Amino acid sequence: MRIIETRKAPNPRRVRIFLTEKGIEMPFEGIDLMAGDLKTPEFTAINPMQRVPVLLLDDGTAIAETVAICRYFEELHPEPALFGRGAAGRANVEMWNRRVEQGLFAAVTHVFRHLNPKMAHLESPQVAAWGEANKPKVHWMLGLLDKVLARHHYIAGEEYSIADITALVAIDFMKPAHLEWREGHANVARWHDEVSGRPSAKA
Amino acid sequence: MRIIETRKAPNPRRVRIFLTEKGIEMPFEGIDLMAGDLKTPEFTAINPMQRVPVLLLDDGTAIAETVAICRYFEELHPEPALFGRGAAGRANVEMWNRRVEQGLFAAVTHVFRHLNPKMAHLESPQVAAWGEANKPKVHWMLGLLDKVLARHHYIAGEEYSIADITALVAIDFMKPAHLEWREGHANVARWHDEVSGRPSAKA
Repeated sequence: MRIIETRKAPNPRRVRIFLTEKGIEMPFEGIDLMAGDLKTPEFTAINPMQRVPVLLLDDGTAIAETVAICRYFEELHPEPALFGRGAAGRANVEMWNRRVEQGLFAAVTHVFRHLNPKMAHLESPQVAAWGEANKPKVHWMLGLLDKVLARHHYIAGEEYSIADITALVAIDFMKPAHLEWREGHANVARWHDEVSGRPSAKA
Repeated sequence: MRIIETRKAPNPRRVRIFLTEKGIEMPFEGIDLMAGDLKTPEFTAINPMQRVPVLLLDDGTAIAETVAICRYFEELHPEPALFGRGAAGRANVEMWNRRVEQGLFAAVTHVFRHLNPKMAHLESPQVAAWGEANKPKVHWMLGLLDKVLARHHYIAGEEYSIADITALVAIDFMKPAHLEWREGHANVARWHDEVSGRPSAKA
């Protein structure tokens, strides 16, 4: 098995943090998305969506999509559980992971891709007004997370989960997107300091 | 248990089709998103994201997000398996469901919400250029699915799965979004005729 990724992109970081939390070591193969490596015929045959990360199994099967890769490793190595415990617990983690993906991660990504001239080759056409429209969405979601983190230690409750990984990566991705977040979000700041201090955050 | 939904919205339809395939009967409670029911304090307390569907468990727990609800029922009623079988099989279904969600469902939704004046109260600001930018994304993804459906009976392989439900609902949602899809997509048409013929499609 090996994982094809791009070191600086946010989705591959989600997978690296997840694997580090699980204590799983994997070989990584880097490709350069700024050099057009996602659009080669070779990579397109592996992932027609032209995105990283991709997990390649030993039989040649390619598994793309960050959460599909993480869920595969959750099944192979159930502990520590990062997708929750029990049917209702797992549904709760899935709910929060998706809320963070759609409300925060996707919104930050839209700001970054539609307002950064260097992204023009990956996001065509860039729609600056759509980038701008996502800025208040990001701040609305941070406000919701701040309320949640006033009541719970982690985003989906009292246990660290994939929802925390998604939120950490999304919030750290705000820096290259030129978005500020600390002011007025003391509970998010408390949580961010803590999850950033876990060894996995450096993965 | 009961499900709060809006009959005409696409995500609640995904849950209804899923439950019908499983043979599960559930009470549904309808709310009117065009009348502002999603933004009331009562509904916001149930789902702060102000979206349907929401599953309410008997202990009062609210589970939002379509796929979280479906996965909860998959755990309670594993057969027929709609999330795949085995670790690699389940990762494959998750991958395809997410590809369809992001590449097709989200793109159709952006066309609908940003170009339909009636959606102005739910999508603010509407960015018409972003709606237009999603039209070629929809057609690119249909082209990919047409190649996939030339090789496989269903989207994630030879078994019907949640990825087929997501794609069916997304394609049927193209009609109110004023998007055409049949021309040049003979394999998608073959698949659409078949999955539309299942009793669940009327749910």
